Amino acid sequence: MHILLAALDLLGTFVFALSGAMVAVRYRLDVFGVLVLAFATGNAGGITRDLLIGATPPAAIADWEYLGVSVLAGVLTFFWYPITHRLRRHVLVLDAVGLAVFAVSGAQKALVFGLNPIMATLLGMLTGIGGGMLRDVLVVQIPTVLRAELYAVAGLAGAGVVVVGHLLHVPPTAAMVAGGVLCFALRFMAIRHDWHLPAARLQRRRGVSDKRRDKDRHK
Amino acid sequence: MHILLAALDLLGTFVFALSGAMVAVRYRLDVFGVLVLAFATGNAGGITRDLLIGATPPAAIADWEYLGVSVLAGVLTFFWYPITHRLRRHVLVLDAVGLAVFAVSGAQKALVFGLNPIMATLLGMLTGIGGGMLRDVLVVQIPTVLRAELYAVAGLAGAGVVVVGHLLHVPPTAAMVAGGVLCFALRFMAIRHDWHLPAARLQRRRGVSDKRRDKDRHK
Amino acid sequence: MHILLAALDLLGTFVFALSGAMVAVRYRLDVFGVLVLAFATGNAGGITRDLLIGATPPAAIADWEYLGVSVLAGVLTFFWYPITHRLRRHVLVLDAVGLAVFAVSGAQKALVFGLNPIMATLLGMLTGIGGGMLRDVLVVQIPTVLRAELYAVAGLAGAGVVVVGHLLHVPPTAAMVAGGVLCFALRFMAIRHDWHLPAARLQRRRGVSDKRRDKDRHK
Repeated sequence: MHILLAALDLLGTFVFALSGAMVAVRYRLDVFGVLVLAFATGNAGGITRDLLIGATPPAAIADWEYLGVSVLAGVLTFFWYPITHRLRRHVLVLDAVGLAVFAVSGAQKALVFGLNPIMATLLGMLTGIGGGMLRDVLVVQIPTVLRAELYAVAGLAGAGVVVVGHLLHVPPTAAMVAGGVLCFALRFMAIRHDWHLPAARLQRRRGVSDKRRDKDRHK
Repeated sequence: MHILLAALDLLGTFVFALSGAMVAVRYRLDVFGVLVLAFATGNAGGITRDLLIGATPPAAIADWEYLGVSVLAGVLTFFWYPITHRLRRHVLVLDAVGLAVFAVSGAQKALVFGLNPIMATLLGMLTGIGGGMLRDVLVVQIPTVLRAELYAVAGLAGAGVVVVGHLLHVPPTAAMVAGGVLCFALRFMAIRHDWHLPAARLQRRRGVSDKRRDKDRHK
Repeated sequence: MHILLAALDLLGTFVFALSGAMVAVRYRLDVFGVLVLAFATGNAGGITRDLLIGATPPAAIADWEYLGVSVLAGVLTFFWYPITHRLRRHVLVLDAVGLAVFAVSGAQKALVFGLNPIMATLLGMLTGIGGGMLRDVLVVQIPTVLRAELYAVAGLAGAGVVVVGHLLHVPPTAAMVAGGVLCFALRFMAIRHDWHLPAARLQRRRGVSDKRRDKDRHK
């Protein structure tokens, strides 16, 4: 189980790093920029969580494996971008696996470090979305997760299951599997059915036709 | 006094979170983005200060109250944006209260953790401006505080009073009240009279007319 | 030796702060923004490294000298921008000195804190490039180091020499001098001969003429 989790953790890092590297290539960064974005996207979530709970040096800095898989993802993307680009739908599904793993393992680690249930849930989610947010900030884009996708909510749900399981004295392994499956399923459905969260109305309620027009404009 | 300070601290968080949520709505973020910007704006200053002085986990992560008021501010803004938008002048005054509270309590906490007077002053200011800076970076804007407002200087003055009081062995409570009042007064006057800090000249001194034209162009 | 290193460290901070302040003036930030960018550019690399290795409070926060030289650089740039702007080629060479000092001292500090050789090398590089990255993010630009210059690789080489020297039990002083000289030489040559790292191809291999056209377009 422990080995499986470690393997999934590295798989998550690898897939997130792929997404970072692909964005870097698209923005015409040089090979160093591709590697930095790969590492940042794969590890910034976990590093931020570790800094916040006081676990220094963060796992991604203390061990070299995280760097290794990030560099691997960066190099693969740099040299074979057309291929990774063609596989991007599959990468998106793998990315959902990464989100699930990061959310449940992040929540579990926060619980182990004694955080209260609510904040442990949030830190699980942050582990899942932090890397993508830094990736977007570095290429000067508003983070996708803040405006366009049902992504963080899936992470929140997965992390929440782990924390509720902890409160109900469910064995951690079972809670993590359940949380991970829920998170993956939610995210997978969101990708398939193009689920989004609503944005706020800028003006008071108007006629239905106005609302529809407004909706179309912001699609 | 202690309870009053805690109440003011949460009020500051709430008002900062309101400003973050309003920016999020204006940039058409989804409901999750609104909540993230609310939390980030309300708490990033204090979290950064706590990380820098080694107080992990930061208060805003260890307790759930900060999250609670941030989410409240986010939800209120999301559902009643037109109303919060209409109250924005009042929010601006409350924001000055938040700045004052954060600057003096931030400086006080840094002193308690043994930082030297100069850096404690700076950390007080950082507590006050850090949230707004992260808010602006997340929506890909140059932080307002860096270019358009007399804001940080008010925080610096308030934090400075606390630190000078500490050096002169004034009771902390008195120093914090004095610092908070000074900070609020400065910021309030800056809002009322539209005070700004100067920017540097890009070229050597020229005739007066050139300078005026240059000024107009950059208004 | 120790005093020389401390002096070089402050010189590096000063030069980096100059580059931050010059960017701030160019983006029309006010005097406070100029000082913030000066401090951030001069110190963010070292602060990030210290947070990651658990050395809190970071040196740049615990001591006031770093703030002092950063403010000095900011004030000089603010009042005499035309002069610093005219000296920018010399500032670029001094910047290479700063990069060299930061890379080798950053790697050395990471080794002292027990990090493994690979991550110590990376943290040395991060010490050298972190400030410039934050500078660019704050003015909403994709960090230059990610896309346009042979800069980080020079830092990586310098830090690598320190770490290899450590593994071979070379005296730290000798390894740091060698690493610093290598880093400076690489960066200096990159400035002189306009060396760049390659970017990835967005499409599969095409005819030579297409590639040349593509190259021209992205110059």
